[in-house]
Amino acid sequence: MLTFFYAPGTIALASHVALEESGADYESKRLNFATNDQRKPDYLAVNPKGRVPALVTGQGILTETPAILVYIAQMYPKAQLIPHNDPFRLAEIQSLNSYLCSTVHVAHAHRPRGSRWADDESALESMKKKVPQNMGECFDLIENTYFKGPWVMGADYTIADPYLFTIAKWLEADGVDPGRFPKVLEHRSRMSQRPAVKTVLGREQA
Amino acid sequence: MLTFFYAPGTIALASHVALEESGADYESKRLNFATNDQRKPDYLAVNPKGRVPALVTGQGILTETPAILVYIAQMYPKAQLIPHNDPFRLAEIQSLNSYLCSTVHVAHAHRPRGSRWADDESALESMKKKVPQNMGECFDLIENTYFKGPWVMGADYTIADPYLFTIAKWLEADGVDPGRFPKVLEHRSRMSQRPAVKTVLGREQA
Repeated sequence: MLTFFYAPGTIALASHVALEESGADYESKRLNFATNDQRKPDYLAVNPKGRVPALVTGQGILTETPAILVYIAQMYPKAQLIPHNDPFRLAEIQSLNSYLCSTVHVAHAHRPRGSRWADDESALESMKKKVPQNMGECFDLIENTYFKGPWVMGADYTIADPYLFTIAKWLEADGVDPGRFPKVLEHRSRMSQRPAVKTVLGREQA
Repeated sequence: MLTFFYAPGTIALASHVALEESGADYESKRLNFATNDQRKPDYLAVNPKGRVPALVTGQGILTETPAILVYIAQMYPKAQLIPHNDPFRLAEIQSLNSYLCSTVHVAHAHRPRGSRWADDESALESMKKKVPQNMGECFDLIENTYFKGPWVMGADYTIADPYLFTIAKWLEADGVDPGRFPKVLEHRSRMSQRPAVKTVLGREQA
């Protein structure tokens, strides 16, 4: 039995959906960021970074979305969340997921979490101001270059889909009109209809 | 034959070393960031992000360090750069590599590349001021929590080693005394002695 730690509205949604899609036997544990659960000793013993997600497995604890996603896909191969025995296609998925994690998520984080990278208020304001431009450029690239359709990596639904979906849900709050990205928008809407996504969003928002 | 695009002094070193360790048949192509080669049309056709590294394979082009590293490791299994058939241990490596890519590299980038996230000079100064603290905290966590020894993931040399090595080389320039991290420092020095690292550093610095 896996134990999955998440907080609503965070990047943990991607792994949460993948878990639900995979058929894994898991339980979800919610952290409340408003009361700073993620910085309390109990949780820091699980994830010393004080962030979500974290996945407790029989072999140890995993953190970082791209790692958790590929672990789920490899452990539950029947769900076919990655192509098996095709290093190039797996690397293409990992490439998109790395871009989402190191560039797109980071571009977003400069709005709510600028204090990670600067201490004074005017710098935080300056970072916030640039978020719509950066997120817009990231999604231009995804829409026009990386999105293969109908799923982001092509014919098959993969671990890249819930990851893109999770970040695409932040566009409006980041000051970007998602109407600029018709493929991403249609994907977001189609993702919302998947039973696993409905189940997980229902649980996270309950 | 693979073609690998890099620029000296960048994160491309990690993949460059892994390629050299793997025994792959590859050629290296150097970009000069001083003349903005990475923004020229020829290279944007290879990598629309205008960044390094990029790896041109017979099946297509890969970007993003964690993806390139795992591709090399899977394509050249004799080099044993990842554990095979062990999803948990592979995910542990991917977890460290994701942390290096999305948190540590990003913490560093706020010194030389703050203009990605803010436009005004005082914000860039503010970001630079926080880099030593952030890089110090990242390496505290690596030194005290994630470094297993003698290699970063334990007994076996993996794709996480050249990645850590590459970023650890930036500590002094980022205003952090590497003497605070004896395991990382010893690792850096041991890495420097590997034939593949000597070959690649010699080529990059030629």
